[in-house]
Order: sequence, then C-alpha cells, then structure tokens
Amino acid sequence: MKNVFFTVGPTQTHPKLGEYLNEGLEKGIYSISHRGKEFGGLFAHTVSSLKTLLKIPPDFHVFFIGSATEAMELVVENCVEDKSFHFVNGAFSKRFFQIARELGKHPEECGVPAGEGFDFQKTSIPKGTELVCFTQNETSTGVKIEMSGIRALKLKHPDTLFAVDIVSATPYAPVDYGVADCVFFSVQKGFGMPSGLGILIVNDRCIQKSQVLHGNGINIGSFHNFPALLKSAGKNQTPETPNTLAIYILGRICDFYLEKGLKQIQKETDEKAALLYAFLDNNPRYPAFVKNETWRSKTVIVAETPEGSAGVIKKLAGQGYIVGAGYGEFKDKHIRIGNFPMHEIEDVRKMLKVLE
Amino acid sequence: MKNVFFTVGPTQTHPKLGEYLNEGLEKGIYSISHRGKEFGGLFAHTVSSLKTLLKIPPDFHVFFIGSATEAMELVVENCVEDKSFHFVNGAFSKRFFQIARELGKHPEECGVPAGEGFDFQKTSIPKGTELVCFTQNETSTGVKIEMSGIRALKLKHPDTLFAVDIVSATPYAPVDYGVADCVFFSVQKGFGMPSGLGILIVNDRCIQKSQVLHGNGINIGSFHNFPALLKSAGKNQTPETPNTLAIYILGRICDFYLEKGLKQIQKETDEKAALLYAFLDNNPRYPAFVKNETWRSKTVIVAETPEGSAGVIKKLAGQGYIVGAGYGEFKDKHIRIGNFPMHEIEDVRKMLKVLE
Repeated sequence: MKNVFFTVGPTQTHPKLGEYLNEGLEKGIYSISHRGKEFGGLFAHTVSSLKTLLKIPPDFHVFFIGSATEAMELVVENCVEDKSFHFVNGAFSKRFFQIARELGKHPEECGVPAGEGFDFQKTSIPKGTELVCFTQNETSTGVKIEMSGIRALKLKHPDTLFAVDIVSATPYAPVDYGVADCVFFSVQKGFGMPSGLGILIVNDRCIQKSQVLHGNGINIGSFHNFPALLKSAGKNQTPETPNTLAIYILGRICDFYLEKGLKQIQKETDEKAALLYAFLDNNPRYPAFVKNETWRSKTVIVAETPEGSAGVIKKLAGQGYIVGAGYGEFKDKHIRIGNFPMHEIEDVRKMLKVLE
Repeated sequence: MKNVFFTVGPTQTHPKLGEYLNEGLEKGIYSISHRGKEFGGLFAHTVSSLKTLLKIPPDFHVFFIGSATEAMELVVENCVEDKSFHFVNGAFSKRFFQIARELGKHPEECGVPAGEGFDFQKTSIPKGTELVCFTQNETSTGVKIEMSGIRALKLKHPDTLFAVDIVSATPYAPVDYGVADCVFFSVQKGFGMPSGLGILIVNDRCIQKSQVLHGNGINIGSFHNFPALLKSAGKNQTPETPNTLAIYILGRICDFYLEKGLKQIQKETDEKAALLYAFLDNNPRYPAFVKNETWRSKTVIVAETPEGSAGVIKKLAGQGYIVGAGYGEFKDKHIRIGNFPMHEIEDVRKMLKVLE
C-alpha cells in the first residue's frame, strides 16, 4: 500500500513528478550549464508559465531562491531600513517578524490569538513603517486572510510596501497585484514538488527601495540582493548555480496546471474543502479549530483532537493516510490536513471514512 | 547518441542518479516532513557518510545550504566583523572577496595573474585579519593550491580563522582539518548531482566567532546564521524546509563512493589527469594554460585554444562530448575539462581522439 500524504507541505507529490524527473535526466538537464542558452530557455519558460498561471503582471520580477524562509530574510534586507509591521497569527507570520528583529530592524506586530484573523480596518500602522507583512494562509493554524482586507489597508497607506507570504495559499488563492508589492512561496505545497526552491516575486518599487537602501550604505545582502537577482534574471539566469532540476519541474507543473485550468483546480479545492469542513462541523470528536468561517483556509484544514492527535494520526497512517500533527504548542491538540491540487476527492472521502 | 558532459559543473551526472531519484520517489522521501523521524534519520545518515568519506573530524559540523555562493556570504557574515584576507587567482576566489565587500566588511587581497598559484610563505597577512580565504581549486583557471602551503601559513597565524573553498576539488583532494576551520562545496561537481545544494562544514571556533559577533550586535544573518544552523543540525534538521531530495541523493552517492573507496577514485582521477595533461603537453594546438606543474588542478583541466574555443567546443559537441568554454575574459581563449569520479577513462580517450 502506498501512502497518500495529506500533510501540509512537503506533501503528496504531483502525479507526473516521476515522469518529469526522468525526462529531465534523459534530456541532460541536470548537466547543462547555468550560463548557457538551454538553461536560459528553461528559465524563461518557467517564468512565463508561472506568470500566466498566477496572473502576475508583466512588470513583476520572478526570482528563484532556496526557500520561503530565505524570501523573508531577503525582503526585510532589501525593503526595510528600520521599521516593518507584521500581522501575526501563528508561527510563520511570527517567523517573518523575528527575522526582521534578527536582522537588526525594529519591527512591530499586530498579534491575535491562534485561530483568529484580523480586522484590518481597525489596525493602525505606525508612522514610518516601510513594509507591512501579511501571511495569506497561516500554515500553523489554518487561518486565511482575504486580499480585499489587504486592499482596504493599502488604500490608506499607498506609499508603504506590502509583502504577502502566499506559501500554502498558491496557486489556489488569487493575489491582487495592485496591492501586493512582493509575494513569495515554496514549491512543496500547492505545486506538489520536492522542497528546495523558493519563488520571490517583486515589483519595481521593491527594487527601487533596495537601490535606495544600498545607496545609503545599508547592508542589503550580497549575491541574492534584489539588484543582483534582477541583473541575473534579465539574462534568464540566477546569481549562483541554482536548483535547475526544480526550476525545470516547476515549469512542467505550471504547464500541467494551465492545461487543466486554474478555475478547475479552484473548483476541486473548494469541493474538497467543503467536504472536509462539513465533516468537522458534524463531528464533535474533530471540531474545526478555526471557528469563524470567513477565516477558514481552503488549503490547510486544522481540526482539534480532544482525545490527542497521536492516536488519530496513527489510525490514519495505519490505513495509508498521512496527516500532520498540530504546530508547536498544538502538536497534540490538532491535526492539520493539506488540500492541494494533487489531492483527489476520492482519497479525501476514504480518509474521512477512516476518521469516522 | 547521448552526450558525455566533461563540463566543470554542472557536469556528467552520477550513473546511479536515475536509480536513486526513482527510489526516493518510491519511498515517499519527497513527501516526508522535515520535522519528522524519517527525515532525521536521512539527515544523520548523509552527514555520517559524508564525514566518513571526507575524513571530517567529529567536532566539525555539517550544514546543508543552497549553494557554495551562499556559503561565502554566511562565512563572511559569521566569521568577520571587519577584516578578511583573500588569496585571489581567478573569478571564484575574487567572488569571495567581493561578497565580503558587498557585506560592508573591509577585505584585502593577495592577487596573482590568472593561471598562477601563490607563494604563501612570502605573503604577509595584515594585522587584525579575522579570516583568511583560500580556493583549493580555482574553477575559472584550473589552478590548485596545496594544503601544505596553507598549513605553513596557519603555523604563523594560529589564531586566525581559515576558510577553504573546496568546490571543484572534493572529494578527490584531501583537506587538512587541522588548518581549515571551515570548508564548503556544492554537489554538482565531484558528486555528479543536480545543482541546488551547498555543504558548509565548520568547527567550533567558527561557531564561537559567530556568537561573539552576535553578542556585539553585529548582523550575522537570520535563519542561516551559524547558531541557527547548529541548533537545527543538533536535531538532525535544517532551519528551513530543505532540499530533501538532494540531501538524500548525496547520502546515496557518498555510500557509493565509500563502497568504491576514495583511494580508487583518487587513482582513477590521477590516471585521467595524466592522460589529459600528457595530451596537452604534446599538442601545440591545445597547450595547458597552467604552466607550472605543481599548480595544475587534477579535476579542472584548462587548455588554451589559440584558434579560438568555439570551433573546438563545436567539434567535440558534434561527437557528443561537451566541454566548457573559458571563463570570463578567457571565454574564447580556453576550453575547460572536468575530471570528476563520474568520468570514465575510456570516454577521456575517445574525447581526446576527437581533439587530435
């Protein structure tokens, strides 16, 4: 029996992953020079396919880096001289805040209890804030935030840069590139890939900010600072020898998703999410952790486990269904279920049968 | 006809790569949690196998990062408050120097013309130097340096940290861990892997230095600073979701190399290098770029191409042998030939036949 990974990332890999991996090997893609024409074509194709899939405007730049965590560091280094502001409702939004502090900045935060979202209209952003940071989908708690809420805030702060962590939301959840100046994600969630590649997407305002900081003698990092990434991307290259395998696979999976259609992916995600939440709402042994329906993520579904999570996880694993434990302090109090494009509705049904 | 990549990295992939990639997929390794037991075992195995293969002393720590270029940034951030010193004889040693400058440090350099090595005994290291940086094998020019030369210098500067870039030298060239405080490499050279994983190996003196810098309020980076990497490594983890695929494959290839024996790998490398240099020394159309035999790298062999490199590269490619162009200003003046464990002596012979 092969396991089905309903974990929140790394998770079930894309069904075509094996085929793509082997084709890459056959074609010699893992041997080609990262300074040559063939790599340039591959780079350009992945960027183009990703931009089409995620509806990224032409004036945004796509950078390939190591992880979403690295993206947090780069965004702070390149967009903040002193003050960032963070909406914190879980471990990953908190991490963004902490990275800013570790880099010697003076971040502030608006915190709410785990499982809750934000009232953006009531939050006042401190004067002098250079960057406001959001987490579209807090993977530790299963809370999502809506782009419309971010838009309302942006209207009040048009000159402040907005960064959105879209890690476990993309490609399902739309991004309003009129309000987000930069977004980032990693490929081991909604793209069903092996981990090890981060994608950072920034507009010219972020580039300009990094240039101003650099001009003022602020440390913006070295090989992966925005001007360096931009210069290389202009040649369809990366500053260092990159994860060519992952850039290639990402392009193939974007093509696959485009062929299938993002609308269809969203429809299937909604159907599976409805099934999962209906089960939780009708089953007192597994109540949904996020009570407010508008805050419930469609891609990371968190259930409370009043009888402890270990037994539930073991029971599911015994039938080949791997789900995640709660995050941090919730390790034994929650299970977390990923709902990504690779997950089949039939498997969701079977998994819920085991849970019943 | 399948190409044989004699490029200097990315290069010919390991013959077992396809098998290992597919086994990883079959076993679900690209889906497992990077915070779980199975990943911990995999991490520990790769570290252990690598330490055995490269004879790394137990008190050195192995960190998995994105690239050797990232290693340069991390080493400077974590080991230098103000002054590093760099032996520069090509593009990659120069890069290390430039990264230090970009990070706001005040590096100095000892430069020699491309194709030449160093007289370490005659070089005086400036007072106050915190870190001395060496490139064991300058991939841009094919010049190697000997650990014995570094040792002589270390005896004069026992309190200064020494960092050695072993990118295209390892696993062939031995490292004297009595004189190197940290070394780093990437896996797309001597390990025949897809690029996208850097390995950084540091001793406790480097860790202590990073702690002192941090204590003094110096920015040592965030998620990948040495204390963070060490804390995670202590749990057989990485701070971020890592390139699990590559960590797994690296472990398998280390096992393969251990089975074969490093001595055998070194013997074969020497034989192929002897064949290559003998050809160049007897063929005025392709004189070896490095004239001094003691400076000649065994793993990156650079030949001058008085008639231009493009025609030579094309001729070889027509027969399925891919070699690299010269680096930077030498693009049309050199070809570069990788001599790594994956390269078969029979293929070297056939390639040289085409060159004749």
